[in-house]
Amino acid sequence: MSGSVTFFKGVSNLARFFVQANQIKNGTVVIVGDDAHHITRVLRLQPGSLVECVDQDEQVHQVELQELGTVVVGSVQQTLGLSQESPLHLTLFQGLAKGDKMDLVIQKAVELGVHEIIPFTSRYTVVKLTEKQATTRHERWERIAHEAAKQCGRTRLPVIHQLHSFAQVLTSIQTRRSGGELVLLAYEGEKHQGLKQVDAHHPTAVSVLIGPEGGFSSEEVADLAQVGAHTCSLGPRILRTETAGLVALSLLGYKWGDLG
Amino acid sequence: MSGSVTFFKGVSNLARFFVQANQIKNGTVVIVGDDAHHITRVLRLQPGSLVECVDQDEQVHQVELQELGTVVVGSVQQTLGLSQESPLHLTLFQGLAKGDKMDLVIQKAVELGVHEIIPFTSRYTVVKLTEKQATTRHERWERIAHEAAKQCGRTRLPVIHQLHSFAQVLTSIQTRRSGGELVLLAYEGEKHQGLKQVDAHHPTAVSVLIGPEGGFSSEEVADLAQVGAHTCSLGPRILRTETAGLVALSLLGYKWGDLG
Repeated sequence: MSGSVTFFKGVSNLARFFVQANQIKNGTVVIVGDDAHHITRVLRLQPGSLVECVDQDEQVHQVELQELGTVVVGSVQQTLGLSQESPLHLTLFQGLAKGDKMDLVIQKAVELGVHEIIPFTSRYTVVKLTEKQATTRHERWERIAHEAAKQCGRTRLPVIHQLHSFAQVLTSIQTRRSGGELVLLAYEGEKHQGLKQVDAHHPTAVSVLIGPEGGFSSEEVADLAQVGAHTCSLGPRILRTETAGLVALSLLGYKWGDLG
Repeated sequence: MSGSVTFFKGVSNLARFFVQANQIKNGTVVIVGDDAHHITRVLRLQPGSLVECVDQDEQVHQVELQELGTVVVGSVQQTLGLSQESPLHLTLFQGLAKGDKMDLVIQKAVELGVHEIIPFTSRYTVVKLTEKQATTRHERWERIAHEAAKQCGRTRLPVIHQLHSFAQVLTSIQTRRSGGELVLLAYEGEKHQGLKQVDAHHPTAVSVLIGPEGGFSSEEVADLAQVGAHTCSLGPRILRTETAGLVALSLLGYKWGDLG
């Protein structure tokens, strides 16, 4: 595909992997597990091929592969201090949605630069998960977030929280508010205040709350307002739950983050 | 679900149908075909139930149903002049994407208020469709757009164009540019100009071009620039083709449309 300009490709076209501090020592990188399998069996890279390894300090290392197999070993060729993270800390509280919609929300939210996703249940949540199902689902969401982070060129892995109850959501918002964070509740009942009217002086952290398909009860809206969430409209049309979060993250990224 | 505030529900919770001029006469509405089937068999509405019918002048009529079956007859109770269309005319040129991604793009773009969608093929389009497949796919996209428009409370049906060749895209852009429309090319090679830097004095019509998975060739980018498309970045991360259009439409709706 020479001569092509691949769409929205970031720093390079190299495959990207997240590594822990103990995987890099004296310029040597050791990769095991799924990533080693991916490099050796899926991408079928050869000795001499380059990959990108991102460490926990958001340093991007270009690594030349030396040994492949169950254990992949490579050597750091150069290190670039290239954070691709938004200066705005974004958290999405997403009401548990039906079917594979959560997968979509998580993948897209990671592309949009989200730092934390907090899935939650509330009064009108349609989907009911047992504790075991919630754990399995959480592992799945973490995998999706990890893959999306690699693919879109993130330098930090977003945190996918365990499924929260509505009470836990309230507590988390209280904590965030007392830390000075702006908390927005995307709410169709809000007819006047769009995001343009939100009176906040360039916040460094914003959380946005999106209800499940069944919406929030009016008691829940009141509870959220009481702990400091500001209601905010996302326009005159009815957005599906999986659309609303992505729109909110896009607009926040444009207004205060790195999408402008 | 009494006491609930359904999320992002628009004017009402009534089912919405688009009708032609000849379906409404002297306060009587006649509905046939798929919509009649939907009302009678799927929603199982009864005589006395209310629905919303939107005519081609974007008037929203509240209609009380009288007869159900293959032919549904109702009488207009009141008429509301409630356009829910963005003042900004938005057109999405979307490179043909793999699998069911086009379905997603079309559904979400309609929620975001798009007025026209122009799917196109270009040099690095991965999906190849025969003429017959393209026709079938076009019918499918129109159905998806129609359903989404009903569900999100649109008052005008967006136009889904037939699959365009890249040459047809260039011609269309030339025409749009000579009509004063702003045309943006979401392009990863653009490192400086984000949407905030686009120098346009509140345009009334904007088109945005999103490449397929394979991206645009550099010749295509040059051709698009020559007919007047402005390159524009959507941030530092790599957005998938199906994400890029939705982000662009969100930001344009915020900047110049009705999402603010």
